[in-house]
Amino acid sequence: METILLALELIGTAAFAVSGAFTAVRRDMDVFGVMILALTTAVGGGVIRDLILGLTPPRTFQHPVYALISLCAALAVFLIARRGGTEKSTGPYALTMLVMDSLGLGAFTVSGIGTAADAGQDGLFLLVFVGVVTGVGGGVLRDVLAGETPYIFRKHVYASASIAGALLCAALLGENETLALTLGMAATVLIRLLAAAFRWNLPHAGKGAGGGAP
Amino acid sequence: METILLALELIGTAAFAVSGAFTAVRRDMDVFGVMILALTTAVGGGVIRDLILGLTPPRTFQHPVYALISLCAALAVFLIARRGGTEKSTGPYALTMLVMDSLGLGAFTVSGIGTAADAGQDGLFLLVFVGVVTGVGGGVLRDVLAGETPYIFRKHVYASASIAGALLCAALLGENETLALTLGMAATVLIRLLAAAFRWNLPHAGKGAGGGAP
Amino acid sequence: METILLALELIGTAAFAVSGAFTAVRRDMDVFGVMILALTTAVGGGVIRDLILGLTPPRTFQHPVYALISLCAALAVFLIARRGGTEKSTGPYALTMLVMDSLGLGAFTVSGIGTAADAGQDGLFLLVFVGVVTGVGGGVLRDVLAGETPYIFRKHVYASASIAGALLCAALLGENETLALTLGMAATVLIRLLAAAFRWNLPHAGKGAGGGAP
Repeated sequence: METILLALELIGTAAFAVSGAFTAVRRDMDVFGVMILALTTAVGGGVIRDLILGLTPPRTFQHPVYALISLCAALAVFLIARRGGTEKSTGPYALTMLVMDSLGLGAFTVSGIGTAADAGQDGLFLLVFVGVVTGVGGGVLRDVLAGETPYIFRKHVYASASIAGALLCAALLGENETLALTLGMAATVLIRLLAAAFRWNLPHAGKGAGGGAP
Repeated sequence: METILLALELIGTAAFAVSGAFTAVRRDMDVFGVMILALTTAVGGGVIRDLILGLTPPRTFQHPVYALISLCAALAVFLIARRGGTEKSTGPYALTMLVMDSLGLGAFTVSGIGTAADAGQDGLFLLVFVGVVTGVGGGVLRDVLAGETPYIFRKHVYASASIAGALLCAALLGENETLALTLGMAATVLIRLLAAAFRWNLPHAGKGAGGGAP
Repeated sequence: METILLALELIGTAAFAVSGAFTAVRRDMDVFGVMILALTTAVGGGVIRDLILGLTPPRTFQHPVYALISLCAALAVFLIARRGGTEKSTGPYALTMLVMDSLGLGAFTVSGIGTAADAGQDGLFLLVFVGVVTGVGGGVLRDVLAGETPYIFRKHVYASASIAGALLCAALLGENETLALTLGMAATVLIRLLAAAFRWNLPHAGKGAGGGAP
């Protein structure tokens, strides 16, 4: 399991770092601000995961690879944004942000489950809960630090995509770990992308049964 | 002690979940946003408590009952808000919010102390500090995630109500645990409600000795 | 090492408490709000440090001296602000805030490294990472709770000052611990003050190669 877990985690780290760097660039932060927000987003979920599981110091503090990947991704985003496109709210920007955030969400959801299982946990509820908190943690930190309403409250299918992927991953974990992690991540990413593509909505309390305020 | 501690904790969980759900409904979040903010508010203080005491994984991750209660409370608030009253800033709303937040504050303050004592801690300072952090933690998370100034800074007697209840609870803990927890919670809730009823104020630095800007 | 580590930590605690109290006074919080924000700023970094290193309960919860110093510093700031200067954005205010925040940043950066080394950690990456997170943690909590964009994103040389001091401290730690901690802190504070004095800037992505929007 180690190899596939590490691979998915590194993908998630790079993807979340890009999403953090994008957010920082859009807020016109300097190169250090971009790196810090990228790093926080990329390692935040993993640190929370390890603290919850009592694995101290968190893995991120022990292996420089996570920070290194984050900083390289941040620098790349910064340089590209500096050279070229500063149209920060147009299609390509929004699409990249969606895909990167979804990849991070999916990767860290299954990373939470895999790490918890490695640490000897086997309850379904705990595995799923740790997975979801790990998955959404980095993005929540990113948005709170950037002064924005967290995605988890803005995007209609976000935590639910993570929960669905977590349930699938935890259910398959006993059978085949590589399959469980891969499918769990794929399910999370797919549900999130489909939700964005088809603008799935969940009901609001403010919207009455028929009509309501304009 | 176990039974009374669990009972107070479940009351606090439900109360804080309602306060989180109310906050989310007022911000017009969708049903999932309401559930997530309710859950975060309800379990946040307990997770912080367990991390501080080194009890990992936190109790909330091991027993689904806390999440279950939170989600049921959130769903109830959502459905009621959807059907009926959307006058979100009127009397009944403000009163419910005050009572629920106070109950959560009181319950988690003594839950922090009881859990710390169960974990073998006996210093007065530590017990009170852990109690207050546990008591205010959920509400602070709720308000930061919802993008609002935390209650702890807005409401004049908030942390002080928690500190008073915590001192009472910690002082009585050696005598009778059930009494200590119950009276500590009651004191916190009562002080907070009285402060709200009589609009107790604490001095501001901006208000000079005599007069000042209009 | 214990004595010098404790001494620097107490200096950092007082300095960060003042910076938190100043922020709260500027936001016109009441006396309790001022104390809470001062306390959170002053102990936040140390709590994060101890959680990361698995040292539970955190030192702040075991020794009342940190809380005591924070509350005294907060009360002093509150009383001075109440009596006299409410010109909250003028020179003396900004200068005090800069110096106090820099002292806190420097002190907690080396406190993170010293504590990690005491806990048996010796990897350069881990020492520096823990140092920087400990150094910036209190200020980030302060700014997020006060609803402001964290200094770490606003001030051009902030995390970099902490990283430079942390590298120096970690490099010298094997030679002479007192020297390492003192020089590490001095370097962080000096770099931060020089950056403020000379308005050092780092590049933004928004600023194109030649010219750009006015």
